[in-house]
Amino acid sequence: MPFPLGDAALDALLADDVPLGDLTTHLLGIGDAPGVMTFAARGPMVAAAVEDAARLLTRAGCTVETFAASGAALDAGAPILTARGPAGALHRGWKMGQLLIETASGIATTTRAIVAAARAVDPDAAVAGTRKMVPGTKALSLKGLMAGGGVPHRLGLSETILVFAEHRAFLGGEPPAATIARLRRGAPERAIVVEVATVEEGVVWAAAGAGVIQAEKFAVEAVAELAARLRTAAPHALIAAAGGITAERAGAYVAAGARVIVTSAPYAAKPLDVAVRIAPA
Amino acid sequence: MPFPLGDAALDALLADDVPLGDLTTHLLGIGDAPGVMTFAARGPMVAAAVEDAARLLTRAGCTVETFAASGAALDAGAPILTARGPAGALHRGWKMGQLLIETASGIATTTRAIVAAARAVDPDAAVAGTRKMVPGTKALSLKGLMAGGGVPHRLGLSETILVFAEHRAFLGGEPPAATIARLRRGAPERAIVVEVATVEEGVVWAAAGAGVIQAEKFAVEAVAELAARLRTAAPHALIAAAGGITAERAGAYVAAGARVIVTSAPYAAKPLDVAVRIAPA
Amino acid sequence: MPFPLGDAALDALLADDVPLGDLTTHLLGIGDAPGVMTFAARGPMVAAAVEDAARLLTRAGCTVETFAASGAALDAGAPILTARGPAGALHRGWKMGQLLIETASGIATTTRAIVAAARAVDPDAAVAGTRKMVPGTKALSLKGLMAGGGVPHRLGLSETILVFAEHRAFLGGEPPAATIARLRRGAPERAIVVEVATVEEGVVWAAAGAGVIQAEKFAVEAVAELAARLRTAAPHALIAAAGGITAERAGAYVAAGARVIVTSAPYAAKPLDVAVRIAPA
Amino acid sequence: MPFPLGDAALDALLADDVPLGDLTTHLLGIGDAPGVMTFAARGPMVAAAVEDAARLLTRAGCTVETFAASGAALDAGAPILTARGPAGALHRGWKMGQLLIETASGIATTTRAIVAAARAVDPDAAVAGTRKMVPGTKALSLKGLMAGGGVPHRLGLSETILVFAEHRAFLGGEPPAATIARLRRGAPERAIVVEVATVEEGVVWAAAGAGVIQAEKFAVEAVAELAARLRTAAPHALIAAAGGITAERAGAYVAAGARVIVTSAPYAAKPLDVAVRIAPA
Amino acid sequence: MPFPLGDAALDALLADDVPLGDLTTHLLGIGDAPGVMTFAARGPMVAAAVEDAARLLTRAGCTVETFAASGAALDAGAPILTARGPAGALHRGWKMGQLLIETASGIATTTRAIVAAARAVDPDAAVAGTRKMVPGTKALSLKGLMAGGGVPHRLGLSETILVFAEHRAFLGGEPPAATIARLRRGAPERAIVVEVATVEEGVVWAAAGAGVIQAEKFAVEAVAELAARLRTAAPHALIAAAGGITAERAGAYVAAGARVIVTSAPYAAKPLDVAVRIAPA
Amino acid sequence: MPFPLGDAALDALLADDVPLGDLTTHLLGIGDAPGVMTFAARGPMVAAAVEDAARLLTRAGCTVETFAASGAALDAGAPILTARGPAGALHRGWKMGQLLIETASGIATTTRAIVAAARAVDPDAAVAGTRKMVPGTKALSLKGLMAGGGVPHRLGLSETILVFAEHRAFLGGEPPAATIARLRRGAPERAIVVEVATVEEGVVWAAAGAGVIQAEKFAVEAVAELAARLRTAAPHALIAAAGGITAERAGAYVAAGARVIVTSAPYAAKPLDVAVRIAPA
Repeated sequence: MPFPLGDAALDALLADDVPLGDLTTHLLGIGDAPGVMTFAARGPMVAAAVEDAARLLTRAGCTVETFAASGAALDAGAPILTARGPAGALHRGWKMGQLLIETASGIATTTRAIVAAARAVDPDAAVAGTRKMVPGTKALSLKGLMAGGGVPHRLGLSETILVFAEHRAFLGGEPPAATIARLRRGAPERAIVVEVATVEEGVVWAAAGAGVIQAEKFAVEAVAELAARLRTAAPHALIAAAGGITAERAGAYVAAGARVIVTSAPYAAKPLDVAVRIAPA
Repeated sequence: MPFPLGDAALDALLADDVPLGDLTTHLLGIGDAPGVMTFAARGPMVAAAVEDAARLLTRAGCTVETFAASGAALDAGAPILTARGPAGALHRGWKMGQLLIETASGIATTTRAIVAAARAVDPDAAVAGTRKMVPGTKALSLKGLMAGGGVPHRLGLSETILVFAEHRAFLGGEPPAATIARLRRGAPERAIVVEVATVEEGVVWAAAGAGVIQAEKFAVEAVAELAARLRTAAPHALIAAAGGITAERAGAYVAAGARVIVTSAPYAAKPLDVAVRIAPA
Repeated sequence: MPFPLGDAALDALLADDVPLGDLTTHLLGIGDAPGVMTFAARGPMVAAAVEDAARLLTRAGCTVETFAASGAALDAGAPILTARGPAGALHRGWKMGQLLIETASGIATTTRAIVAAARAVDPDAAVAGTRKMVPGTKALSLKGLMAGGGVPHRLGLSETILVFAEHRAFLGGEPPAATIARLRRGAPERAIVVEVATVEEGVVWAAAGAGVIQAEKFAVEAVAELAARLRTAAPHALIAAAGGITAERAGAYVAAGARVIVTSAPYAAKPLDVAVRIAPA
Repeated sequence: MPFPLGDAALDALLADDVPLGDLTTHLLGIGDAPGVMTFAARGPMVAAAVEDAARLLTRAGCTVETFAASGAALDAGAPILTARGPAGALHRGWKMGQLLIETASGIATTTRAIVAAARAVDPDAAVAGTRKMVPGTKALSLKGLMAGGGVPHRLGLSETILVFAEHRAFLGGEPPAATIARLRRGAPERAIVVEVATVEEGVVWAAAGAGVIQAEKFAVEAVAELAARLRTAAPHALIAAAGGITAERAGAYVAAGARVIVTSAPYAAKPLDVAVRIAPA
Repeated sequence: MPFPLGDAALDALLADDVPLGDLTTHLLGIGDAPGVMTFAARGPMVAAAVEDAARLLTRAGCTVETFAASGAALDAGAPILTARGPAGALHRGWKMGQLLIETASGIATTTRAIVAAARAVDPDAAVAGTRKMVPGTKALSLKGLMAGGGVPHRLGLSETILVFAEHRAFLGGEPPAATIARLRRGAPERAIVVEVATVEEGVVWAAAGAGVIQAEKFAVEAVAELAARLRTAAPHALIAAAGGITAERAGAYVAAGARVIVTSAPYAAKPLDVAVRIAPA
Repeated sequence: MPFPLGDAALDALLADDVPLGDLTTHLLGIGDAPGVMTFAARGPMVAAAVEDAARLLTRAGCTVETFAASGAALDAGAPILTARGPAGALHRGWKMGQLLIETASGIATTTRAIVAAARAVDPDAAVAGTRKMVPGTKALSLKGLMAGGGVPHRLGLSETILVFAEHRAFLGGEPPAATIARLRRGAPERAIVVEVATVEEGVVWAAAGAGVIQAEKFAVEAVAELAARLRTAAPHALIAAAGGITAERAGAYVAAGARVIVTSAPYAAKPLDVAVRIAPA
């Protein structure tokens, strides 16, 4: 499970929203009145970032009890957490705590659906989330992704080898086998992934030794054709299908031969509503 | 126009994605090859965060020329910027620069549509974006919002007075007029906004002196009824309609009497594609 | 009540003063000896930042008990807090804890005096602190201000509308009513404040629709004249008197018709002495 | 001369005050209009932090020319700097740039007066600023202090040896000579300063080997007596007079035998007005 | 090539060493005197972090020209860079600029020797640096490593699969093939590395499907035996030899069958002297 | 004892190594299994940074008990700490906690040896660590140094006076006595240290009034000669011997007359192994 958001990150989120407390609470003079706040799932959702929200609320001055762990599938109405504390603390942490869970749960729920669709066809299929998160939300997005059963495709550019056409344009016509050999020599321990736009390209690079062929925006049929040709040309190569693949189509891609669905779709998932109630205690 | 993302924020985004350069570029040995990268609108969009992306690319080691300013309405294919530099710098800044523009332009474009719908009915109507951004994206979200013609509803809890039912629950039955008097005494210079759930509540609080009645999840007809009653009960009070109002319905709410549309919808807008091309120079 | 200084901010203050512990304590070899430290008011003061100082001392390694809350009016000699711990922790936190309280209490005490003077004349008068704090002390200054009963005039430039002559110089002679209409259209929910230098300007802008006229460096008589003219010209407009108004003169300004005293004076208040005693325990 | 405030510090100050640009400028639509802003000394002052303010204004988007260096004694009306740029940039940087200079120049001017008073009596006398700055203003305060001709007494607790009574309380009656011997053994290269409250204490610790006797809140006559006794008891020991010594009394303390005036007075100096003018260009 | 240290990181290093300028330079009054500073290799070295040092010196106020790129093998006496500027700027940046190059070049030179030794035997061998850097020096250490021709073994725990005995202790006797199957299912795109302590373990895990067997503290003969047995048991599996392997022994390990040398040795390399000269200009 | 590494610094170290948890632990599904981890000294060592490692492990989610304090001399096999918690937390904190202790203990152990060698000759001798730490490791290096019985020579450039030849080059031939007089006037409370390259220079500057002569790269005999000449020429001046002095030679330098050994050697000490065991609990 991803490492929790650090104290400094949680404090920064709070300070961003509430640099000096809730002015309304302050002016009403109700900041010290004891209260209780509950978070519950508005509709069905895979919960995520619950622990982080609990820590944020704690840092805002609340005492928190959680009823659902990140990764749990919740029914509508299921309780998520209860926070107790002075009204000032509840109001201070309310919205940011809610947004953390709503955002990450949206991502987790969408991911879970894609994972389920893929694994219904092949229990060994995996769903990998790209690095195309909303800028500034990497930790939160990966929490959602992993709570939903996905894995990171790449954490960033510095730790994986993924050869784009935009790299190959600078290679001056070097034969694929030579390119692969150079990559393998440079980093023998790492998998070599090559993104291709056609079946032909996929066959060439797999034959040259790429471990994973990332089929970018292929039709399902093209994946099937690629899989068929790789069976003889490069039986060890894996196919990762990328580009706009949603839960509806994930199964078809896996059936066609993709072992991995590479997707950014979860990051654009709509946040899922968390119902919040605040009352005097 | 919003203040640009600071150097430290841009460097943090780059470091998040590319802590140690693009490993692939490094292993291929193409980092120093001169190249050129172009960004263009894939479809029609209101551009946003173009200046920020340009600064990020500059900090990544590119020389950048921009062709569209934030706020500009672009046709499909319209050029946004061109970056020149060594392939290592282009690959380093590519995705994060693209994501900044895609995210903010999605927000700007959705905002612009709501603004247009509202102002088609009443040129003085305004669209105010809530503080319910994806956690960690406040500056970027507000850039998109303002590029689209919206204004921030609140920057956070510390600078506006917005009385929720969740505040009133702690007031022990204090008459609204007394509450408003206390708020006004505390902060005479600030507008007093009260969120209400029914027409009746709206009339009561407006009569008590609230400057703005925020009608939460009202039907269009309810807004119309509220407006009618306020005309006599509290002619100076403004109506702000909030809660899931999209461009399709914004005009109807304004026609019913809302002067402000308060919305979080733009923050959930799908990022809009920026087409990127990279080639040797 | 303002949000507490975050852990990171407190740690930064400690590290700034004591990057590597108290060298003297270290060389004397007394760091582990148990001790007790008391803070008390040297003279009468409105206490502020007590909770923050207590947290800082806790983070420095002490166990802290507080005897006065921020906002409390203390007599000379009144105990503020007691910290217990090893001598190394006491010396580490001593001066920065003391300075937090001394600085904020100076601001709070000066604010309280202005508030008292203003409210002696009009219980609905308010005292608003400007944004002209010593650079880098915003949170601490606002703590002092609010503990003394003041409110922030503006948290910064991004959340309030305050039209200076320095803005109007760029308007090319636009009639005030047109300017106000544009501002209202852009941000209908926000109060519009206009700073003026003469009674005549004040009347013009109030008549044009400004909600608050900020009378900059007006004599008391000029405020009275402005109030008289606004009574007919713009009965809803509020007068905020700004510019060097101390507790001595605040009452007169309120009597003349100012509803708000806008002041930077508290930020330049002399820190108020906190008497510190340290002894072996 | 102190190191300049880093880019990150300047950006943080700007972001603190103007997280999203000047809302007023934005709503008025004047952000792109070219303008010019001048800073000048309102009254006589020793300028400080001019270079930092210039850098801040540059980072806010202005082009800056300076006319006075930190440390220069300015007459009333003397120009300090001119900034040119779009009105949005001028408004963004105006107040924080002004506050940096006003705050630091207040400190510098007060320091210069104490230095002048002390050196009129003894050209070798020095003025050392304590570490009791307003929390969070260390760099700015030291800029002011050093521009005025002062030196830091201590940058913090970790790099100097200054034995307070609050340390000695934990020594269990160890003879002063033994204490000094331990300190000298621990850190032979550093000066040993001992703060004392009476002449007798001063003589004892100087005789024991302290290099500097810090006479805390001594009357002038007590300093003279201490100086007389040290002439025979410990001719190498220096006297540093501390505690509320202003320019008026600094000369008398030096005449009495103090070689160093240790003071916090400059940090509480009133900021000195910088006159700002903004106009279209 | 690794991404450069960001501006904020460079400023932090400078501020750490020189929070307020060089006191000595300041007191001597020589800060504005123009000077020139040269850096040269004291002995033979593979240069590293030259570009970062140049940027740091630039930020300190110097104008810098470089004569050697990171990765270049320098003879004793070879010039590295020249910095010009006021003496205050030269003294401010001197030591930290020097330390950056000395530290990284020590790492680069040691790495280069191991790489050379390994590739003399097998041109496809690689040298991978572990994550056991001195805490807080990750970017600098990786710069040195990569300048010397090494690659990162892992950037951290979150992006690679490396199964330690310390993981397996929690598996309750699960058969290796089942463990590998679960890992492959979870992250099909990533290489699976298993650290083993004996030849037998290595054979078992390779046969179970691990892609890389990390032989921890194996004698050369044990590596040879492992290689021999894997040739039939798991011909696709790679051997990575880890644990205290220096340049002297790297060739033997490669000859024995290791394709990758995994090492922390470069991080403990002695910094290599950079000769610095400063003179008036 | 040095101030502990702040929470933010510890979190940054953790995040640097483990941004998103241990992927291997996560994929194996063992993160929640309870476990226990022990740290023990592999060989004899002076322990350092134990408390910091304990805090880091606590922040990673473990419960920690320590058995050795920083500064304690441990035998091979001596227990240092035990951490209990879920396997995910143990794996998260393991390596960074270990590295903190290994690095700092290496420095402490080397320092202790030099201190012992010096004090065997003269119990009043001191060992001062230079500021030439690996960039970014200042706090950790000073922890090691001070745990080993050393003191910081300088924390940085801003708080000590140390005149290098590189300063004197800008003085235009000013007589040493005049230079010393200016320094003393500027900062009477601080010791004046002058680095010299020859005995003659040392005599000249000591006679001119320098308090400490830093003999850079002197042979032992040269130190003896300098000491002999200073006995008459400047009996109060102290000799600090600097430049590559290890434990083997420290005694000889002290015997020759050096009161302080100034050294960077500890910072290049090899990290000392901490044996780590992890097992289910």
